[in-house]
Amino acid sequence: MTKGRLEAFTDGVLAIVITIMVLELKVPHGGNFDDLKPLFPVFGSYILSFIYVAIYWNNHHHMMQTVKHVTGSILWANMHLLFWLSLIPFVSGWMGENHFSSASVFLYGIVLLGAALAYFILQFLIIKSHGKESILAKALGKDLKGKVSPIFYIIGIISAFFNVYISGVTFVLVAIIWLVPDKRIEKVIKNTFE
Amino acid sequence: MTKGRLEAFTDGVLAIVITIMVLELKVPHGGNFDDLKPLFPVFGSYILSFIYVAIYWNNHHHMMQTVKHVTGSILWANMHLLFWLSLIPFVSGWMGENHFSSASVFLYGIVLLGAALAYFILQFLIIKSHGKESILAKALGKDLKGKVSPIFYIIGIISAFFNVYISGVTFVLVAIIWLVPDKRIEKVIKNTFE
Amino acid sequence: MTKGRLEAFTDGVLAIVITIMVLELKVPHGGNFDDLKPLFPVFGSYILSFIYVAIYWNNHHHMMQTVKHVTGSILWANMHLLFWLSLIPFVSGWMGENHFSSASVFLYGIVLLGAALAYFILQFLIIKSHGKESILAKALGKDLKGKVSPIFYIIGIISAFFNVYISGVTFVLVAIIWLVPDKRIEKVIKNTFE
Amino acid sequence: MTKGRLEAFTDGVLAIVITIMVLELKVPHGGNFDDLKPLFPVFGSYILSFIYVAIYWNNHHHMMQTVKHVTGSILWANMHLLFWLSLIPFVSGWMGENHFSSASVFLYGIVLLGAALAYFILQFLIIKSHGKESILAKALGKDLKGKVSPIFYIIGIISAFFNVYISGVTFVLVAIIWLVPDKRIEKVIKNTFE
Repeated sequence: MTKGRLEAFTDGVLAIVITIMVLELKVPHGGNFDDLKPLFPVFGSYILSFIYVAIYWNNHHHMMQTVKHVTGSILWANMHLLFWLSLIPFVSGWMGENHFSSASVFLYGIVLLGAALAYFILQFLIIKSHGKESILAKALGKDLKGKVSPIFYIIGIISAFFNVYISGVTFVLVAIIWLVPDKRIEKVIKNTFE
Repeated sequence: MTKGRLEAFTDGVLAIVITIMVLELKVPHGGNFDDLKPLFPVFGSYILSFIYVAIYWNNHHHMMQTVKHVTGSILWANMHLLFWLSLIPFVSGWMGENHFSSASVFLYGIVLLGAALAYFILQFLIIKSHGKESILAKALGKDLKGKVSPIFYIIGIISAFFNVYISGVTFVLVAIIWLVPDKRIEKVIKNTFE
Repeated sequence: MTKGRLEAFTDGVLAIVITIMVLELKVPHGGNFDDLKPLFPVFGSYILSFIYVAIYWNNHHHMMQTVKHVTGSILWANMHLLFWLSLIPFVSGWMGENHFSSASVFLYGIVLLGAALAYFILQFLIIKSHGKESILAKALGKDLKGKVSPIFYIIGIISAFFNVYISGVTFVLVAIIWLVPDKRIEKVIKNTFE
Repeated sequence: MTKGRLEAFTDGVLAIVITIMVLELKVPHGGNFDDLKPLFPVFGSYILSFIYVAIYWNNHHHMMQTVKHVTGSILWANMHLLFWLSLIPFVSGWMGENHFSSASVFLYGIVLLGAALAYFILQFLIIKSHGKESILAKALGKDLKGKVSPIFYIIGIISAFFNVYISGVTFVLVAIIWLVPDKRIEKVIKNTFE
């Protein structure tokens, strides 16, 4: 099975997820700057979620470059990842509209954690089907980033009940960790093909 | 005629269908966990519909791999399938918002049945234009799954008037039957090309 | 300039247009069959518009197969076509919600006419840049369909002020004329390449 | 890294941005021509924004043809551009619904300026990674258009506080300047490959 359509479908879903989030920024009825104020938290939430979806697209892009064949279980693991990411517009909108209430920050963290685990499963299945000597396996190495992120999410999820600022910091921190595209894969690909 | 654009257009429509369904999960105004409660049935409906669209995409993907040329009638049969699938966000939202009322479960079943018949027609036209010795024809064999599903849907549609739980069970059951990607096609493709 | 991205972008826009139309089918609050009744005209309008967008995608697909190079003016003529088609969800929703009022049927006709003229311009520019001996020029011949459609639209637009049923009949009639994919192009392509 | 998926993702996002803008044209409840009147400014705003997104797609298309390899920073510069463009439906809707109030015209200008700067950064990174003798570097030359546009935007942004008509004229003017696809790149590509 070729990976072309899997990539095309994923690109489609992520492009829509990242774009319909803007629909949560409801156009205010008044035309003055003051009328924008209630939208500030929604906009902050929008930026964070935009960056998260962009990170997932970037890493998915990198990971897929190492893939040679696609199995049925990889297809479904990918769908599972898309499921969690498709929930981001909802939890992002809820968090923004309720000024980062405990419950909404908690749920946002759950969705981030779900997406991270889904990505981990997808990565695991790809390595399994391509062998331990595959490009991806070599590139990941100990996969520190991948192991640290869920821990941060869990800290963020738990602290949502005590202090949502701590949650906010952890979510932003994970985004920063990943913002740098995965040089490991890029490097190993280069070494392999050149 | 090449199949590239047919696949691209189908991927686009299915990616949008699967993603805009999340817009039926209206962001609640309150910020507590209690405010999410009314969304539980909508969310359940969302998960079921997500899986159905994913199944259609998966099977479409598999079927198209066996296609060599696309005729005008295949194009229109594909559009017919997309028509039924495009109604899923609507019936899914209606079913969820009305806590699985008889009428909404009935309509959901009708749309699933319509999509199943449209898929059957599309498959029939592809086999017709590629011959009985084609990969798809061989792969399908007796096509038990394809024949059993409509019967389950009809049972679900009728029982919607008496007991929506039976309908729910049949719809979930069909999803489980199909959740496994079509190993038949995968197997025959492998045997043919390797 | 290659035509690949032009096709991809057009596929994307048409896939979205055809899918977001379903958002005009607002989920009713009640869960009984009676609650669906007000949606009947919207649904009728949805089916007609779905078929129109499908026809445009089909014909665009056929036409593009004959294209070898894309000029700047072809790009813009294509954008112009997409502009008119992007208005279909709006006029379709307005027409359905107002039970085919004169004004809404009139506007629907205007958008169909605009799209037809935009398609005509696009076709003209492609033939101009590919020469009179090109596949498309040969395939179109006298282009009877293309010349008859605008006349029908104009009849439909004018009769909207007197009798919307006549308009409805003309719009459906044009759809039927085009529903058959353009065998002319398919035939000439076959003769040329085989 | 190949540019295929970058193009596909950008096409997807821009196709969605250009199409969901039409959702800001809320279907009016009445069915007469008078009921459309309140939509006139929204529609004017829609046309302007449609043209802007189309211009960005066109220029992106041209620029990408000169790209041979994609680095991590190019990926992120592209995401940054998409971020600003994803805000267009929101600012366009706000400007239209509030009849071009000072604040809304100001914000519209800010988003146009942000997109222009993001495009400039993307272009800069591509030239940097491809060298001063690259096709793009040659094609741009002094890049008069690219340097003049931000100045016009800034004039439009400032004048929004005094006279929104001046802002409108400057925004339309920039659109006209860019409406012609970038013949420079087209020409140099032709000279290079033919």
